[in-house]
Amino acid sequence: MSTGPIRPTGRAYTALRPASAARITGGFWAARRRTNAEVSIPQGPARLEAAGNLANLRAAADGKGTFTGDYPFQDSDVHKWLEAASWQLADRPEDDGEGEGEGEGGTELASHVDELIALLAGAQEADGYLQTYYRLARPEQRWQDLRWGHELYCAGHLLQAAVAHHRATGQYELLAIGVRFAVLIDTLFGQDRAIDGVCGHPEIETALMELYRETEEQRWLDLAAYFVERRGQGLLSEGAGRDPGAGYWQDHIPVREATTVTGHAVRQLYLLAGATDLAVETGDAGLRAALERIWAAMAGTKTYLTGGLGARYDWESFGNPYELPPDRAYAETCAAIASVQWSWRMALLTGDAKYSDLVERTLFNGFLSGVGLDGDSWLYVNPLQVREAHEEFGGDDSVRRTPWFRCACCPPNVMRLLASLPHYMVSGDAEGLQLHQYATGVYEAGGGRVRVETDYPWRGRIAVTVEAAPADADWTLSLRIPSWCPDFTATAPDGDSPAETVPGWLRLRRRWHPGDSLTVDLDLSPRLTRPDPRVDGVRGCVAIEHGPLVHCLEGEDQRAGVPFEELTLPHDAHLTVRHEPELLGGVTVVTADGRSRGGADVVPLTAVPYHVWANRRPGPMRVWIPRE
Amino acid sequence: MSTGPIRPTGRAYTALRPASAARITGGFWAARRRTNAEVSIPQGPARLEAAGNLANLRAAADGKGTFTGDYPFQDSDVHKWLEAASWQLADRPEDDGEGEGEGEGGTELASHVDELIALLAGAQEADGYLQTYYRLARPEQRWQDLRWGHELYCAGHLLQAAVAHHRATGQYELLAIGVRFAVLIDTLFGQDRAIDGVCGHPEIETALMELYRETEEQRWLDLAAYFVERRGQGLLSEGAGRDPGAGYWQDHIPVREATTVTGHAVRQLYLLAGATDLAVETGDAGLRAALERIWAAMAGTKTYLTGGLGARYDWESFGNPYELPPDRAYAETCAAIASVQWSWRMALLTGDAKYSDLVERTLFNGFLSGVGLDGDSWLYVNPLQVREAHEEFGGDDSVRRTPWFRCACCPPNVMRLLASLPHYMVSGDAEGLQLHQYATGVYEAGGGRVRVETDYPWRGRIAVTVEAAPADADWTLSLRIPSWCPDFTATAPDGDSPAETVPGWLRLRRRWHPGDSLTVDLDLSPRLTRPDPRVDGVRGCVAIEHGPLVHCLEGEDQRAGVPFEELTLPHDAHLTVRHEPELLGGVTVVTADGRSRGGADVVPLTAVPYHVWANRRPGPMRVWIPRE
Repeated sequence: MSTGPIRPTGRAYTALRPASAARITGGFWAARRRTNAEVSIPQGPARLEAAGNLANLRAAADGKGTFTGDYPFQDSDVHKWLEAASWQLADRPEDDGEGEGEGEGGTELASHVDELIALLAGAQEADGYLQTYYRLARPEQRWQDLRWGHELYCAGHLLQAAVAHHRATGQYELLAIGVRFAVLIDTLFGQDRAIDGVCGHPEIETALMELYRETEEQRWLDLAAYFVERRGQGLLSEGAGRDPGAGYWQDHIPVREATTVTGHAVRQLYLLAGATDLAVETGDAGLRAALERIWAAMAGTKTYLTGGLGARYDWESFGNPYELPPDRAYAETCAAIASVQWSWRMALLTGDAKYSDLVERTLFNGFLSGVGLDGDSWLYVNPLQVREAHEEFGGDDSVRRTPWFRCACCPPNVMRLLASLPHYMVSGDAEGLQLHQYATGVYEAGGGRVRVETDYPWRGRIAVTVEAAPADADWTLSLRIPSWCPDFTATAPDGDSPAETVPGWLRLRRRWHPGDSLTVDLDLSPRLTRPDPRVDGVRGCVAIEHGPLVHCLEGEDQRAGVPFEELTLPHDAHLTVRHEPELLGGVTVVTADGRSRGGADVVPLTAVPYHVWANRRPGPMRVWIPRE
Repeated sequence: MSTGPIRPTGRAYTALRPASAARITGGFWAARRRTNAEVSIPQGPARLEAAGNLANLRAAADGKGTFTGDYPFQDSDVHKWLEAASWQLADRPEDDGEGEGEGEGGTELASHVDELIALLAGAQEADGYLQTYYRLARPEQRWQDLRWGHELYCAGHLLQAAVAHHRATGQYELLAIGVRFAVLIDTLFGQDRAIDGVCGHPEIETALMELYRETEEQRWLDLAAYFVERRGQGLLSEGAGRDPGAGYWQDHIPVREATTVTGHAVRQLYLLAGATDLAVETGDAGLRAALERIWAAMAGTKTYLTGGLGARYDWESFGNPYELPPDRAYAETCAAIASVQWSWRMALLTGDAKYSDLVERTLFNGFLSGVGLDGDSWLYVNPLQVREAHEEFGGDDSVRRTPWFRCACCPPNVMRLLASLPHYMVSGDAEGLQLHQYATGVYEAGGGRVRVETDYPWRGRIAVTVEAAPADADWTLSLRIPSWCPDFTATAPDGDSPAETVPGWLRLRRRWHPGDSLTVDLDLSPRLTRPDPRVDGVRGCVAIEHGPLVHCLEGEDQRAGVPFEELTLPHDAHLTVRHEPELLGGVTVVTADGRSRGGADVVPLTAVPYHVWANRRPGPMRVWIPRE
């Protein structure tokens, strides 16, 4: 049963080939992904039409017309939707690998995808350039505003969509569009070329790495390396528009010298994801060490309990270490997505379970809160507290769900993460298969295939059945033991009880036969979490957690007549768990013996999972509850 | 000894006529005002030259040239400096009313003032318009961007300078420039005139009220009333540039319907100051009731312990009720100044001591922190906490003092408040004189004159000697008893011990003879202040106060070897007071029996007054100290 370190051979979020090598077929994530497939993604084209994104593409194809929208990066909403739709096309949730797998919804989706690809093809200029803002609103001004123009950013999202579409469908049309643009960029950018510069918003880096993996052309890795390494050299120090300081776009220090996350959260995390892709492919030890150091600083000093990132509204940015206000948490949905993408790459780079721990925390809390249960209402910011006396001014930073945003980066980003979610579940290496996340489904990696059945996160039992494994060799099945988990039991095929042989991993190496199963029971017992005393914003408070879920109080669920702001929770309060199948689509609630400030009587507090907050009428909410 | 309510007849910060009717001659404020007079104000012209403000005036006079500076309101820095210099010209701190009072410094200052007035005269256009930004950078675009153009705002500061200069010197040249511009505005603006609109940044309202008082022309009151009453009608809902929402510029609700302060803090407070001026003059009970309600909401739910206002960096704005993070307190120096101006007007409107309580808290803490002890280094933001691990990015929002700002609104604003400070000390009414603030000096109001001698705020003794009073009638001397004061003793001329006959006021009505004195001893004992439990940002903390002074810990003064972030202070800790004549210009420090988190040994904590923080090398700082 001895095992070595995990050395995943996977490559970022498109780790598994074919795209259908992981399928979530039931349980918690299947339900949320069904809403994504049936509501969110299908409504995308209409939203993009209403917001003018498609009109921009048509106008650009005509070579005339006015640009619609407030931002130069409007096209990226289209690209992200196309990426989401592409992953969705590869998804066969109801299929066990035997049928055709593409129902009527799939056909309709495919034709929407084809329509949008045709629009992109029309909008692409003769030399491969594709950004309607510059075509329509700023002709002759290409590449002149690398700070705010978002040209390489849009190209990056185009490339990610192109790779996803090719991976999912085997078709080349969108990939060709993306490659044409990438060739233009490769011709122009470099230290010895016409433009020595980086983009104000990272994204091209990871996209080029994906393109490299898809095409196996070295030039894309080289170009990605150029963009990663040239950052932090002050190339953005001169430019047009408002100047938020070099740290905002991570141009104050090279990645390999940085010690923490800084500036605009999404920019920072996309950059680090791309740098990690590079380290995975090159094996660069210096870059890897920097990434591990930066990640530790982020996770240890700048991450909310929910996995949310970005403490400041101003510049949508990271705050100082331990500056994590619950009420003014910006915690942009896109930052949570970017964090999942980066941490997953770190998991693949290192095999360390802590990265997938944070992926789990983020997925179940600070990410999932970004989309309403209806699949059609969104949060841009994900605070950990809303007061009873909240004064709402609206806008993209509203703490009430809205159907779309003026800056609509988050909704299609949620769609693409949910659509590609199966890829974040497992990795494979020469020894076997690693289960990083738990969802009922079928997963192929590391030379084998397993079937997982679980009611996670509501229940802690995870039953893994091996469907295929090397017949004539030992093979290692690894299950992540979450760091929040105080205890677990495991039952192996031979009745043995395997233990955690590598920190964070339960590993079982043996000869596996189809039908062999390994069952793990994680102790989900609800718990009260005290904050690090250095986090000033939540001093004197406790939070309720249950398994991987952070819970919160919403005003709606509390005893009538007790002012919400007077509720307190002693740090040794008794907690009970109750599943409520009719509440908010079916959730487990935690009830705690609270108090009303200064009172002696018990006031029961009812805490729902954070990810379902703001799905009822507006009201106060708290993750961190005062102890007195 | 019976007294009626206080009904001040004063009118805002120019309450006393002549401008020399109040003179601060010694003690705490005299020292700070001397630095203002000898360093801050004299350096103004050079700073304005270096920043391009004066070049803009010269270019405008030539009718050609480029505009220098990032903001359309650059001229207002000049206006505010002129106002400061004008008040300074009226000041004769060393003079007891017998000499000429204007030394060499005064002559030099007067010639600087005359030079700048000449520049303004040259830059004024034929029709009276005066804003170099529009003359130079946006010709033909006057009044087309009321949201961001700051035209009426600049006009307002010009008028305040004009009134101050006229009041201080008796000269008409600057007043004439101001009136010419005001006439143009009066011709254009109104519901039945060419432009029905209000300015994105209030300021014109209070300025017109001052002009009304100076000239006694009704038209200026009417125009001020128009600008006050038309606000909140959505006139700013359509316009150019970024849209922060109507609440940002208080255009979401009319002043008389508002219930709290909202949006950009300085905008809000200037508006309310102007509205209060209007209520003072018109006696409008509805407007007064609204102002009292709004003030109570501000003081009760949106004001920092230091008197600082504006909890949010984004949009420099008020937060929600009880949203008062210490680390990310914006608490712009200008907002503290605007608060002093508004609360002083409320004191004059109502006679209620609570308004001057807040003036005192703000002056001694959140305002005075804005200027360094050297008189030549400034803070734009005034946080209540800086971490050991602070990551400084610089800019106008730096928490380190800098010589000037890109947006240099605060320095000349500090200069004008310090130069006009004597006006905030006393008011008069038909019954007598009210001492709102305590500073050694001579004050004339309400038909009498008093001399005050005190070491306030370091010591609690205030000795008031009557120099002149009605010879043949009773006269009332009133002294504010600060709300923080737990106890006081008073000794009257006849050996009597007068009591607080109106809440917040010690009043003594009698026949006064020159030389009669009243001595009051306020108990300044240091105290530990616990926050309102609804202020989430400082839960579980205490603050140290001493008399009117809020204290803070700076890293520099704490015991070496104990990490700053580990310092704690039990809520029942023993406090001692010690005057340190050599420290930071001479301050009283409070020493408290603190702890290092988790340790049992006493760690002495040394707390300096908040207003002197950031005058040494950069380091951590805390007003609110964790109890555990």
